[in-house]
Amino acid sequence: MIKVSVVGAKGRMGSHVVEAVNAAPDMELALALDAGDDLTAITPANTDVVVEFTVPSASLNNVLTLIGQSVDVVVGTTGWTPDKLAQVRGVMSAQQSVFIAPNFAISAVLADYFARVAAPYFESAEVIEMHHPDKVDAPSGTAIHTAQGIAASRKAAGLGAMPDATQTDGGSRGQVVDGVHVHAVRLRGLNAHEEVLFGNAGEQLVLRADSFDRTSFMPGVLLAVRKVETGEYPGLTVGLDNFLDL
Amino acid sequence: MIKVSVVGAKGRMGSHVVEAVNAAPDMELALALDAGDDLTAITPANTDVVVEFTVPSASLNNVLTLIGQSVDVVVGTTGWTPDKLAQVRGVMSAQQSVFIAPNFAISAVLADYFARVAAPYFESAEVIEMHHPDKVDAPSGTAIHTAQGIAASRKAAGLGAMPDATQTDGGSRGQVVDGVHVHAVRLRGLNAHEEVLFGNAGEQLVLRADSFDRTSFMPGVLLAVRKVETGEYPGLTVGLDNFLDL
Amino acid sequence: MIKVSVVGAKGRMGSHVVEAVNAAPDMELALALDAGDDLTAITPANTDVVVEFTVPSASLNNVLTLIGQSVDVVVGTTGWTPDKLAQVRGVMSAQQSVFIAPNFAISAVLADYFARVAAPYFESAEVIEMHHPDKVDAPSGTAIHTAQGIAASRKAAGLGAMPDATQTDGGSRGQVVDGVHVHAVRLRGLNAHEEVLFGNAGEQLVLRADSFDRTSFMPGVLLAVRKVETGEYPGLTVGLDNFLDL
Amino acid sequence: MIKVSVVGAKGRMGSHVVEAVNAAPDMELALALDAGDDLTAITPANTDVVVEFTVPSASLNNVLTLIGQSVDVVVGTTGWTPDKLAQVRGVMSAQQSVFIAPNFAISAVLADYFARVAAPYFESAEVIEMHHPDKVDAPSGTAIHTAQGIAASRKAAGLGAMPDATQTDGGSRGQVVDGVHVHAVRLRGLNAHEEVLFGNAGEQLVLRADSFDRTSFMPGVLLAVRKVETGEYPGLTVGLDNFLDL
Repeated sequence: MIKVSVVGAKGRMGSHVVEAVNAAPDMELALALDAGDDLTAITPANTDVVVEFTVPSASLNNVLTLIGQSVDVVVGTTGWTPDKLAQVRGVMSAQQSVFIAPNFAISAVLADYFARVAAPYFESAEVIEMHHPDKVDAPSGTAIHTAQGIAASRKAAGLGAMPDATQTDGGSRGQVVDGVHVHAVRLRGLNAHEEVLFGNAGEQLVLRADSFDRTSFMPGVLLAVRKVETGEYPGLTVGLDNFLDL
Repeated sequence: MIKVSVVGAKGRMGSHVVEAVNAAPDMELALALDAGDDLTAITPANTDVVVEFTVPSASLNNVLTLIGQSVDVVVGTTGWTPDKLAQVRGVMSAQQSVFIAPNFAISAVLADYFARVAAPYFESAEVIEMHHPDKVDAPSGTAIHTAQGIAASRKAAGLGAMPDATQTDGGSRGQVVDGVHVHAVRLRGLNAHEEVLFGNAGEQLVLRADSFDRTSFMPGVLLAVRKVETGEYPGLTVGLDNFLDL
Repeated sequence: MIKVSVVGAKGRMGSHVVEAVNAAPDMELALALDAGDDLTAITPANTDVVVEFTVPSASLNNVLTLIGQSVDVVVGTTGWTPDKLAQVRGVMSAQQSVFIAPNFAISAVLADYFARVAAPYFESAEVIEMHHPDKVDAPSGTAIHTAQGIAASRKAAGLGAMPDATQTDGGSRGQVVDGVHVHAVRLRGLNAHEEVLFGNAGEQLVLRADSFDRTSFMPGVLLAVRKVETGEYPGLTVGLDNFLDL
Repeated sequence: MIKVSVVGAKGRMGSHVVEAVNAAPDMELALALDAGDDLTAITPANTDVVVEFTVPSASLNNVLTLIGQSVDVVVGTTGWTPDKLAQVRGVMSAQQSVFIAPNFAISAVLADYFARVAAPYFESAEVIEMHHPDKVDAPSGTAIHTAQGIAASRKAAGLGAMPDATQTDGGSRGQVVDGVHVHAVRLRGLNAHEEVLFGNAGEQLVLRADSFDRTSFMPGVLLAVRKVETGEYPGLTVGLDNFLDL
């Protein structure tokens, strides 16, 4: 049994992590801590892996403290800059593992990867992301990342611009990211969804990732806990794709 | 058996009409004429209904000539202005039938109609149209028509603006038609497709019409021929929705 | 303001109704009662419309009691047999309104209705329903209802059997309901989804209804409360389609 | 310029190959032969690569003859058994290249590959294939192959049976191929389409490949011609995935 402690255990995401750990047959919950709790209660004696899911303003200090406790850490909090990552690397011992992921949804990470693999083989590619209407930024960071990956793959394969005879357009063709058209839909009832369309003469390939709610991150979090616990990933690892056999 | 003559029989669309009439168990092909042929060869003695599928520059004269021949006409050629329609009405006899449709794809006509019916019941609605990349205009006329219909239905139902918290957007949110966001995708391999998304808390309704190739118009053309032949639609009728039991 | 009382207020669905009523700008929550509470506390003085969302074994008695209190009732509990409905009709006064719906998801009700309207115009039609894997029955009652509606519409329009050259099949073609093939998918992560496919030569029409979670019923419940409160629907009304302008 | 000869040049597929070669900027059409023509007219002097697209009863003899002419061959004809493949291997020289593919649609080959990669990371997976109603077998060979690949990937990753609480089912759950449910839809207007659904708590991944018509095979055929012409694939190669950078 992997002993898992959760930091941010009462938060939106952390409370789901507590549930997911309790439901996982190969894990047991060690400590469930939240703001104000003493993180030094977490030690190698009671914890194999810590999951940290708090807020950007608190996460760096939490992670530095946990490194000092000599435990391995899986971080789900966002807002990691190169400078913050450097601070983490600076204090880690060689055999310690820290894992940080901007997106724990396995379907989204796979769709993003598959898009890069497929891109060289199609004349056309466009990205449509769909989210709830309370989202303030458009398009999503994930969609931008996917479009950039498609563009890089096309360039590496020597492909030129996509065919597009459009002469009149009042904005319907969307935003162009590195030559890839990106469309953002905002619809009540949706959560976070991405569709990538690829086309050749007579054929289409569609990749679609749906994140229906916060529990969609849990399979990715549990996967990360299991991978980190093996000890095979010493150092700082960023991105869930590192834990998928791609 | 309905005796059907085709004007524009060697053209892109007309040749498909000839095939469709030959394949229909309740129709027989009368005359198949093309540019240069004498349309006065078409008479009530040999023809019940004429299908005219030529080019906008020729269609008005063709239709006026056919009206003079006292036969009923189904017109698939585009480019009909109010002025042209008035000229047609001016020369028709009371019992004659002329039918003109901007779109003969039944799936597209139904999706457009269903969108207007559904619109009052959802907080959010957006339109995505997808076409081959040789299309010069974006968005499609059909998508604009659908968006206008949604907007009119919402207004009639007393609905206000849709929820949208977007603050940063580099064009990804698409074109706004009467308050409805419209997105246009251009992809090699596609022909003409439209998707309408409706959303409420926890639910989504999607209407999608796919026109894979020119044969998609034939069921609509045959339907129009059968309806006109009944004699129940005297005068000028515009729009395939008039022949659907909606 | 419409004064709404909720019976079953602590239940899975009832608790969402309480939230939805509190969030609706044109409603205010009157009484929120649950098992063990005295329903005679609900009177025309404090309540315009009651929403009853409990369990099949309790619902009939609850509704009979509420009718005795001379208030209008919207019932979301399932399990209504013709015999139970007859008992309700037997005790109602002429001016009272009771509304019962087997499905409050507007998207599902609309898709079901649109399927019946579209059916006469297509050679082929099939139904795919997709649900979470904990569902014990397959296909869903909604999918059977949709298939029956398609079959009835085709029959009324004089359509015969759909084209199908299949000679070898180990079960992949699904269940045949009144001549319509119905497919059931069970997938972790999904809730309740239905897709209806219609096809003609060269074209396809797809209707899709997604119910992502229980909140998907709330727009339908609120719509029913508003309709019942108008007093324009005296007597017993069954089915949300009666409240949609179809 | 790659000099390409076509065998079966007047056939359904071969005529598209002739068009595709003529349209490719890096290829020129050498000889276009059909049934009755002498294949020994094809020599290394006039041809770099031959594309053979005929019928199963003729293909083996054609390929053996072309091998005798010392030219490289890309074969699109189906019906290759292990015995036939052995005969081809038996007569080839070490430096010659023969390529045979059961499916030249890049989108289908990629979807099949992505399905195997994604399978270990999801609790649930099902396959839906959709074809025109004149198809005699169900499900398609491609769908069976995809289901087998998913099953093999799940087994290799140590996954057990998928969750499924279904108790009553009149066939709607489809055909089970190595533990994977496969559904076959037959719809007028469609050609050949496959959808693979993967699900975890709160998330879904959908892979969809659409082949709208025969031209969908041409990008795959041209890719194969280019790869074979490099001389980097001596011997017999089976399957387009060998030429994709996966």
